[in-house]
Amino acid sequence: MLSLPSNKAMVPFVSVENMMRLVHHLGVETVLAELTDAIEADFRRWESFDKTPRIASHSGNGVIELMPTSDGTVYSVKYVNGHPRNTFNGLQTVTAFGLLAEVATGYPVLLAEMTMLTALRTAATSAMAARHLAPKGVDTMAMIGNGAQAEFQALAMKAICGIDSVRLYDIDPRATAKTSRNLDGFGLNVVSCRSAEAAVERAGIITTCTAEKQFATILTDNMIGPGVHINAIGGDCPGKTELHKDILMRAETFVEYPPQTRIEGEIQQMPANYPVTELWKVVTGAAPGRRDARQITVFDSVGFAVEDFSALCYVRDRLSGTDFCQRLDMIADPDDPRDLFGMLQRAR
Amino acid sequence: MLSLPSNKAMVPFVSVENMMRLVHHLGVETVLAELTDAIEADFRRWESFDKTPRIASHSGNGVIELMPTSDGTVYSVKYVNGHPRNTFNGLQTVTAFGLLAEVATGYPVLLAEMTMLTALRTAATSAMAARHLAPKGVDTMAMIGNGAQAEFQALAMKAICGIDSVRLYDIDPRATAKTSRNLDGFGLNVVSCRSAEAAVERAGIITTCTAEKQFATILTDNMIGPGVHINAIGGDCPGKTELHKDILMRAETFVEYPPQTRIEGEIQQMPANYPVTELWKVVTGAAPGRRDARQITVFDSVGFAVEDFSALCYVRDRLSGTDFCQRLDMIADPDDPRDLFGMLQRAR
Repeated sequence: MLSLPSNKAMVPFVSVENMMRLVHHLGVETVLAELTDAIEADFRRWESFDKTPRIASHSGNGVIELMPTSDGTVYSVKYVNGHPRNTFNGLQTVTAFGLLAEVATGYPVLLAEMTMLTALRTAATSAMAARHLAPKGVDTMAMIGNGAQAEFQALAMKAICGIDSVRLYDIDPRATAKTSRNLDGFGLNVVSCRSAEAAVERAGIITTCTAEKQFATILTDNMIGPGVHINAIGGDCPGKTELHKDILMRAETFVEYPPQTRIEGEIQQMPANYPVTELWKVVTGAAPGRRDARQITVFDSVGFAVEDFSALCYVRDRLSGTDFCQRLDMIADPDDPRDLFGMLQRAR
Repeated sequence: MLSLPSNKAMVPFVSVENMMRLVHHLGVETVLAELTDAIEADFRRWESFDKTPRIASHSGNGVIELMPTSDGTVYSVKYVNGHPRNTFNGLQTVTAFGLLAEVATGYPVLLAEMTMLTALRTAATSAMAARHLAPKGVDTMAMIGNGAQAEFQALAMKAICGIDSVRLYDIDPRATAKTSRNLDGFGLNVVSCRSAEAAVERAGIITTCTAEKQFATILTDNMIGPGVHINAIGGDCPGKTELHKDILMRAETFVEYPPQTRIEGEIQQMPANYPVTELWKVVTGAAPGRRDARQITVFDSVGFAVEDFSALCYVRDRLSGTDFCQRLDMIADPDDPRDLFGMLQRAR
């Protein structure tokens, strides 16, 4: 007979279904607002994290990445892929799962789906950046690229920056129709546009989030007037950008972790000495955010491991007192730790 | 009501219990022999793998590591920790789990416990090396360090190299007693020794596998006569070695992946130009293994990602037709891949 695994050996696992139950239990806008605060709190203590550019394994169809970080007490790692052509086969472009572990023992303490959670944390990170960078009194966001991120971005900007209008554009009108339909009932004025040019009219925040893996020019220089904040999400790996570099010449650019963003972000188009401001310094007050009403600000978002750390810790904390997880028998944990073989024999 | 996740969204998971059931279903010595062949087959096509030193996050108590690799079709990654002091708190020194994914889509296809599986693959790798390096007609192995690896090593060397005697030594006699007890009934002549010097007498293979994180000298130069094969398992991270460097001066040393072994292995004690032979070249015949009966050979084993890749693929193949796995709802996979938010809303 098998002896029961010890408590340490059972790792809480949050499935997709349970992640969705947790989000509805708390409310999606509440989750976005709380996640924004959780991420900002970790950006405030940025220097306490071990940081490394993500470890990428590229192939013809896409990339598989590992994103580890640690604050010395808790370790987190996310597995995430990016396969733009998956869409054409009915699969997700981005899927992910993540792990928290205790640094003192190395034992995993949480395993969670992160496809849904990454969408939430990416939107929350955008909202955190916009809170510091968007023009005062902004009420309208243009959302160019109406894929899996679009609604999360719109709701996060509503919850954190108070926008009341979203102007949608996608090269595929069905994507725009899907996003418009999904946003019905959330109190946003949703306008479907026929061009990117039409979408950016009167928008104080312009979010780009397209999936095509190429040097695309979703935004050209003449589309960008003074005083806007550009939230550039889709340029996130080598060879994939969305902004014309003339925009970057006129703008002040804010980034998560420069060594990673210079490889993966919009600024891969720019020389290595192109000046950027680290977002964590804006959060702590060590660097200015938006300086005046006419400035063009760009958040060159590629996604960084600290944001996943924040999101996983948030889920861990919010799980307590709920039944939104299963326990997985993932760690072999014999009574005598040196007696792994004896554990195997006794299981016969 | 929740819609059911698609087949792609459900990831097969092999728990500790199911891994043990699979091992007993096949037989532990059969698993060790088949794993040895599986690892050797992958070493034979070594050049087709993406290789990188593992990504380590060090702390005061230990290390957490990620070990990714890919052959262009299948991607694997192992999470593994090494916390020598865990033993004193009743925890495993090494725990692990691993993942296989499809490179073409980035979708995970297998999640498995790897504490048990790492013990099996480490022993199989040692046996594969010894098959090419141990003296002909070897019948006795000394096993110094009688922790979680000890029995696996002994059985793999029996299954692959035909040893019939194991001479055990550990600074803790209880560890030796545990190993001796566990090996009862496997057809090995097991001798418990009072010193490392006594254990190595008449042994053609000397395996060292101790856990202390320090520059230890488990084997001194005068203990090593001509014609032995040293299977050095325990020196596997910076600051942790088991052999006196004078042994390395007299020996020919074989390694898995030099960039990793020079950081983590016994040869971290040696200058950067200390000559080593890559084990895969011995397997393919591109480099000689043991050249004569008096040579001292050292397999400076640190564990490499390709071995985990082989082990996970082996488990995946042997799982088919069994019920030794669960299916985890790990990948959010809406009918329309761009409609992640709609999937969330419909789950309400």
